[in-house]
Amino acid sequence: MLKVGIIGVGTVGTSVANILIDNKNIITARAGKEIVPTIGVVSNLGKKRDVSIKLTTNVDEILEDDSIDIVVELMGGIEKPYEIVKKALLKGKAVVTANKALLAYHRYELQELAGDIPFEFEAAVAGGIPIINALRDGLSANHIKSIQGIMNGTCNYMLTRMINDGVSYNEILKEAQELGYAEADPTFDVGGFDAAHKLLILGSIAYGIDVKPEDILIEGIENISNADIEFAKEFEYSIKLLGIAKKVGNEIELRVHPVLISEDKMIAKVDGVMNGISVVGDKVGETMFYGAGAGGDATASAVVANIIDIARKGKGSPMLGFENQPGEQISLMPKENIRTKYYLRLEVSDKSGTLAKVATILGDNSISIEAMMQKPLKSQNANLLLTTHTCIERDILKAIKELENSGVVLSKPSMIRIEA
Amino acid sequence: MLKVGIIGVGTVGTSVANILIDNKNIITARAGKEIVPTIGVVSNLGKKRDVSIKLTTNVDEILEDDSIDIVVELMGGIEKPYEIVKKALLKGKAVVTANKALLAYHRYELQELAGDIPFEFEAAVAGGIPIINALRDGLSANHIKSIQGIMNGTCNYMLTRMINDGVSYNEILKEAQELGYAEADPTFDVGGFDAAHKLLILGSIAYGIDVKPEDILIEGIENISNADIEFAKEFEYSIKLLGIAKKVGNEIELRVHPVLISEDKMIAKVDGVMNGISVVGDKVGETMFYGAGAGGDATASAVVANIIDIARKGKGSPMLGFENQPGEQISLMPKENIRTKYYLRLEVSDKSGTLAKVATILGDNSISIEAMMQKPLKSQNANLLLTTHTCIERDILKAIKELENSGVVLSKPSMIRIEA
Repeated sequence: MLKVGIIGVGTVGTSVANILIDNKNIITARAGKEIVPTIGVVSNLGKKRDVSIKLTTNVDEILEDDSIDIVVELMGGIEKPYEIVKKALLKGKAVVTANKALLAYHRYELQELAGDIPFEFEAAVAGGIPIINALRDGLSANHIKSIQGIMNGTCNYMLTRMINDGVSYNEILKEAQELGYAEADPTFDVGGFDAAHKLLILGSIAYGIDVKPEDILIEGIENISNADIEFAKEFEYSIKLLGIAKKVGNEIELRVHPVLISEDKMIAKVDGVMNGISVVGDKVGETMFYGAGAGGDATASAVVANIIDIARKGKGSPMLGFENQPGEQISLMPKENIRTKYYLRLEVSDKSGTLAKVATILGDNSISIEAMMQKPLKSQNANLLLTTHTCIERDILKAIKELENSGVVLSKPSMIRIEA
Repeated sequence: MLKVGIIGVGTVGTSVANILIDNKNIITARAGKEIVPTIGVVSNLGKKRDVSIKLTTNVDEILEDDSIDIVVELMGGIEKPYEIVKKALLKGKAVVTANKALLAYHRYELQELAGDIPFEFEAAVAGGIPIINALRDGLSANHIKSIQGIMNGTCNYMLTRMINDGVSYNEILKEAQELGYAEADPTFDVGGFDAAHKLLILGSIAYGIDVKPEDILIEGIENISNADIEFAKEFEYSIKLLGIAKKVGNEIELRVHPVLISEDKMIAKVDGVMNGISVVGDKVGETMFYGAGAGGDATASAVVANIIDIARKGKGSPMLGFENQPGEQISLMPKENIRTKYYLRLEVSDKSGTLAKVATILGDNSISIEAMMQKPLKSQNANLLLTTHTCIERDILKAIKELENSGVVLSKPSMIRIEA
């Protein structure tokens, strides 16, 4: 029998306890032994919770109890769970966490501390989708060429509604807040930070790269306008907030930002609050994994899968990603060196010479135009919409600055990267 | 070090040997030990093959060699590989196979014979997609409510082209044969038998049900006409050949047939030669797994993942599916008891009384109509296209017979089940 202690008994913690109880018969059969949730730690004992396990406010009732084999950490935050997880591992307890922020900052250190003690976190990326399992086991024969992930359901819901129903960013943000998909302060979701934490975890599995959120390119969806949406629809693109990890030579691109992506791509078809992660391996080609990225039961499904796995194996399996490319020195690609195609929307005054000026600035920065269209706006102005051939991030950023100061572009240019 | 012998060095076997060599550095790191392909068995030594391992025509050079740890069976057929796999397991060798026909007929027996010796077959279902891994590990906390799979790339390619480009079944079959997607005798693919073998494997994992292809409903795509395709498009359905496993009470539905399925469903968006498998768990909700269902490297990716897993674990993990629902007696639902919605296409003579007769026959068989439309044909005839509310397979089959003999239906009625 294995005893489980749950630290943080909110929506997910409640589901973890209840799944272990509700599905006890199959879980026992699949794990090869009984798994019993015995105690949960909460900060407020007075709050009504739908669980039958004993509750306490004292985390030491788990950490100091030698009969507890597995600690499930679901408290949120970074520093406090970091101390608790460390203590649990030092006590020899297996740890399962869904805490993506903790992992984005401390995964390597904790994994090293864990050594052979299981330290698992399937639920931290894309909720119920077994993507870490897929990378570590199912795709283990492959060099991972790239990962593209829709890993924030809030953003995907908002973008889907903007595209399908023409609602504006502000309207849909309000609706998402009313539906409980977005927080009162939505920055963590719409700013791309939540997706970035998840991307760093996937990047660490696929490439063994250890960088922090501060090191990578993160842009949110706050500046996507209806004019951009219309352009996308006209050219059969979808707009998605993607987390992208890609290996180019010995460098790893890691970035989170909105993309224009062909409607035909499987990942572009992932709509609403759902998550989807496309993984390209050198042998398997493209695979995609789809499912609920949030919600108590879906997230708990992944936590319990880790618990069952720990019960089966006893010890952790070798961490794929730590020795992804033995002997090869990989490093993070500096963000200004990223190469991709770009979409630009420029509000310009509709008069002669404007186009020449825009074209000159782009040309001077080694940016060649793939397609262009001009759409009249109210007043004397027009939207100049264009896409580029592949160029370098550094060049496009410089060109955008020059366009801003050129006198012919009337407001801050809008730029969206195009993903093949 | 683990030594691997490969029996059958065709497209997949060649890829297995080459991946083990090409990706040796990551595979060694991930497996925790070196894995070496040492010998392959072929029937014709004269044929040029792109492998560097030793080849022989004598299978005993693998079976009788105690230094070979893992046997990869890729010969095809049923009885001969059955004998070889048995012998390998009795010798204590781990076995990895991609042979779906062998598994559809002999999996339980071989699994029991294997006991703690690893006997793995990820590549037998949907090529490179790690779906068995997902069922056994990633979704292990869940009762599986249903599985819907596009598991035959040939059929999916043909249906996609029929829908997108309006080509007829016979034209596209010829094209698929020219492209090498379909065999000269295409029955195994287009008749649904290949998909059925894969479905039985998934059903055995998800539900521990042991039935043979002969026991289940299998229909192919041979009778899908352009009239059906047009109807589907008009009502925003896609047409897919699905393998379906579903738990209803203590009974398991297992069936392979074309379906009309809403274009909005994620699985309906899987086009071309690609495979996709949707799994609904009681906790995780819907997940979907997408990728290449065939091809040497994609299939070999799954074979090698199994080999790495065996190297890591040493012994097999408990087989999820054998004790899926301990204490519960499950059985196969008789095919005539299946309940779903149906689409019917009836070629009728365009004269008064026809509709009344059709409606009476359906009503007498407890079938209520959900939607109906009539489309004129050349001559005096018309196509009557209708969909039903949920009813029982037995009733619809009886009604179709009565319609055939009614005098008002001029050719064999076309029926397609509708999948929610």
